Amino acid sequence: MAGTAKQTVAIIGAGWGAYPLSQQLNLARYNVKVISPVRTLQYTPLLASAACGLFDLRLAEEPLRRQHRTQMEYYKAAAEDIDLQNKIIRCKPAVQELNGQVAEMFEVPYDKIVLAPGCEVQTFGTPGAKEHALFLRNTNDARLLQQRMLQMLDAASLPGLSEERQREILHIRIVGGGAIGIEATAELYDLWHESMRHLHPHLDGKVTITIHDVAPSLLSTFDQSLSSYAMRSLEAKKVEMKTSSHIEKVEADAIFTKEDGRLPYGLLLWATGNKASSLLDRLEVRKPEKGLPRILTDKYLRALRPDGTPMEDTFALGDAADIEGQSLPTLAEVAVQKGEYLTRELNKAEGHPTTPFEFDNKGMMAYLGNRDGVVAGKADYTGESAWLAWRSGSLQWCRTWRRRVMISISWLFVWLNGRDIARR
Amino acid sequence: MAGTAKQTVAIIGAGWGAYPLSQQLNLARYNVKVISPVRTLQYTPLLASAACGLFDLRLAEEPLRRQHRTQMEYYKAAAEDIDLQNKIIRCKPAVQELNGQVAEMFEVPYDKIVLAPGCEVQTFGTPGAKEHALFLRNTNDARLLQQRMLQMLDAASLPGLSEERQREILHIRIVGGGAIGIEATAELYDLWHESMRHLHPHLDGKVTITIHDVAPSLLSTFDQSLSSYAMRSLEAKKVEMKTSSHIEKVEADAIFTKEDGRLPYGLLLWATGNKASSLLDRLEVRKPEKGLPRILTDKYLRALRPDGTPMEDTFALGDAADIEGQSLPTLAEVAVQKGEYLTRELNKAEGHPTTPFEFDNKGMMAYLGNRDGVVAGKADYTGESAWLAWRSGSLQWCRTWRRRVMISISWLFVWLNGRDIARR
Repeated sequence: MAGTAKQTVAIIGAGWGAYPLSQQLNLARYNVKVISPVRTLQYTPLLASAACGLFDLRLAEEPLRRQHRTQMEYYKAAAEDIDLQNKIIRCKPAVQELNGQVAEMFEVPYDKIVLAPGCEVQTFGTPGAKEHALFLRNTNDARLLQQRMLQMLDAASLPGLSEERQREILHIRIVGGGAIGIEATAELYDLWHESMRHLHPHLDGKVTITIHDVAPSLLSTFDQSLSSYAMRSLEAKKVEMKTSSHIEKVEADAIFTKEDGRLPYGLLLWATGNKASSLLDRLEVRKPEKGLPRILTDKYLRALRPDGTPMEDTFALGDAADIEGQSLPTLAEVAVQKGEYLTRELNKAEGHPTTPFEFDNKGMMAYLGNRDGVVAGKADYTGESAWLAWRSGSLQWCRTWRRRVMISISWLFVWLNGRDIARR
Repeated sequence: MAGTAKQTVAIIGAGWGAYPLSQQLNLARYNVKVISPVRTLQYTPLLASAACGLFDLRLAEEPLRRQHRTQMEYYKAAAEDIDLQNKIIRCKPAVQELNGQVAEMFEVPYDKIVLAPGCEVQTFGTPGAKEHALFLRNTNDARLLQQRMLQMLDAASLPGLSEERQREILHIRIVGGGAIGIEATAELYDLWHESMRHLHPHLDGKVTITIHDVAPSLLSTFDQSLSSYAMRSLEAKKVEMKTSSHIEKVEADAIFTKEDGRLPYGLLLWATGNKASSLLDRLEVRKPEKGLPRILTDKYLRALRPDGTPMEDTFALGDAADIEGQSLPTLAEVAVQKGEYLTRELNKAEGHPTTPFEFDNKGMMAYLGNRDGVVAGKADYTGESAWLAWRSGSLQWCRTWRRRVMISISWLFVWLNGRDIARR
């Protein structure tokens, strides 16, 4: 490359797919510009346990900017539109609330682009869901969930309430029986049973957790036997399961289902699937005919034109992309592997992928609470060993040694002295 | 006390004065009920350094509820009115946003009451201050300050800004040259000079910090010589000092002063004095004729009736109270000592104070940034030794060993690997 000008690589997004590129693309070879409304990698698989007080919320995110990589430029902005032909990104600053003045749109030209804008929350247009439900997609969501949990216990602890009213306030409803919903259930169960129950003995026996799902079973991406195991495990914990439950609207203190009518809640967590990023509507790329709109790529992660031919300098990965004919799930694991693959390939002498991407399926896990879990992979297993695998897996999500050490110290303190939000 | 019914002690507030009472009043002897809109002790002296990334924000607060003291009842509510004659508190729940339904007012009868409602933010009615300025009174304020600092740097890092516009965005203005304002200045200075400057080399030399105060000098509660030393130290750091500066109004991106007209800012921190809690307006107690309205007490901390006679079962302490004829400052140190004194006295066999309160003046300190500080006490001193005294003093504010260990670990990590928000 000596003698030629550096190429500019623009990266849209700051998630699991974008992060390895932002941290490891060779700065001697590329100008790297990351455009994302969020300045940190959000450790989504750790959010539920952080919300439930197992470690600090700050540990569930990782800043993109680093002192040894200040040449990497980060713009806090959203890519509004991308001219893939002329290689120009039109960006809307995500700092407009600062300083009164509306920050102006700006353009970023590039040589290569990596599209990893991720997905948005999917509420299926259920009225009231966005206004009243809590979500679990970033550390701010996790903070709000923690606050709500604490407020719920404070509200039920006010004097003069009937037991019926207390039970209404203490009803936790979780919408979505996939891995995120189940793990949030497990963590909230542990939070109550291991800690908060002892801190609020006057409320013991009055907390209920109910999972709602439109499907007839939970964890349906897992094998039938693991899904059944999970449901039995949750049943033994007295978690209520409303499968085939259709939510019609959400109000500030109750949801309304087709099957049961009004069902009151004190905390409502919405953990259903993903919706395509609105950026995708404006991109002239090939997308699947049905299902979640995603950018289809070839095996080198090059985005395809509507006619199916690959674009040389346009790559796509993360939840917003999929390899044509391969259909990988929208999981952090897939995004990370693609991000690391693309980093490796772009850092090679050729500067473009020469070997196709292959997904190494390391299996799936879900935590079920009270040291029980399910693991699906080369071998399926359940119980305490699955919990241990899941716990050590949690640490693997950390991209830096500092996070691993800090989270381990936090676990030690929780074991010694209780969760920080409910201490001995 | 055997054979007689337990007395109920109501504590209004969760600050430095109330905290020792909530944690150490003898539960075998008293029913303890704490009424406060905030469920944690806020480590106000640690907020500036937490906001600037020296340790996690959660470490700057301490939950009131403990698993070994669940008999202590905590109500998340504000005392709206207190009938000191008939010993009844009228409370407004501070959880009304939960569950749609407006939570109902409730009453708490008591035998003894400890009034420690603290103070509110004082903006002297400056138009726009409440809407646009940041404050530094609780961990949420500290979180907002940290976010704003990061957003300010992100905003100034967007492409295409003129250097003049960058300098406007990067202008930090601090209103109030007392200890809180000066320490926030010092911490923000350190944050920029030790960390953020290296993470944003493109912004180096463009950040300005200006302190505004109506008084002709800063740190005016300290001796003239220490105040002068502080001003020289800040001057050497190129901190601008606008003394005798009168702010007339605040807009989203600028303040307007009588002396200089419009002055733009990117971050505005308001750290002026205190205003009496609105509860004080409704209390039939003796208050000073001029200055900050406070509940006057005798030397046993018994609140005085308007005629000057003490009420046997009504105690007052913290920033909202003062001993008649003694005039102690509104400092955490005073509140803590009074809280510990009253706990000791109420736990004695008599159940009421028998020896008068005496304030043990341990001196005052202020941090000036870059390992410089001032200490006023038995001996006055300045420089690095003052910084060390202030640092070890910081740890003394922690009420539990867990906080001390966690903050020490955090300092170690900052030293090894940089602040968590600006890592190597």
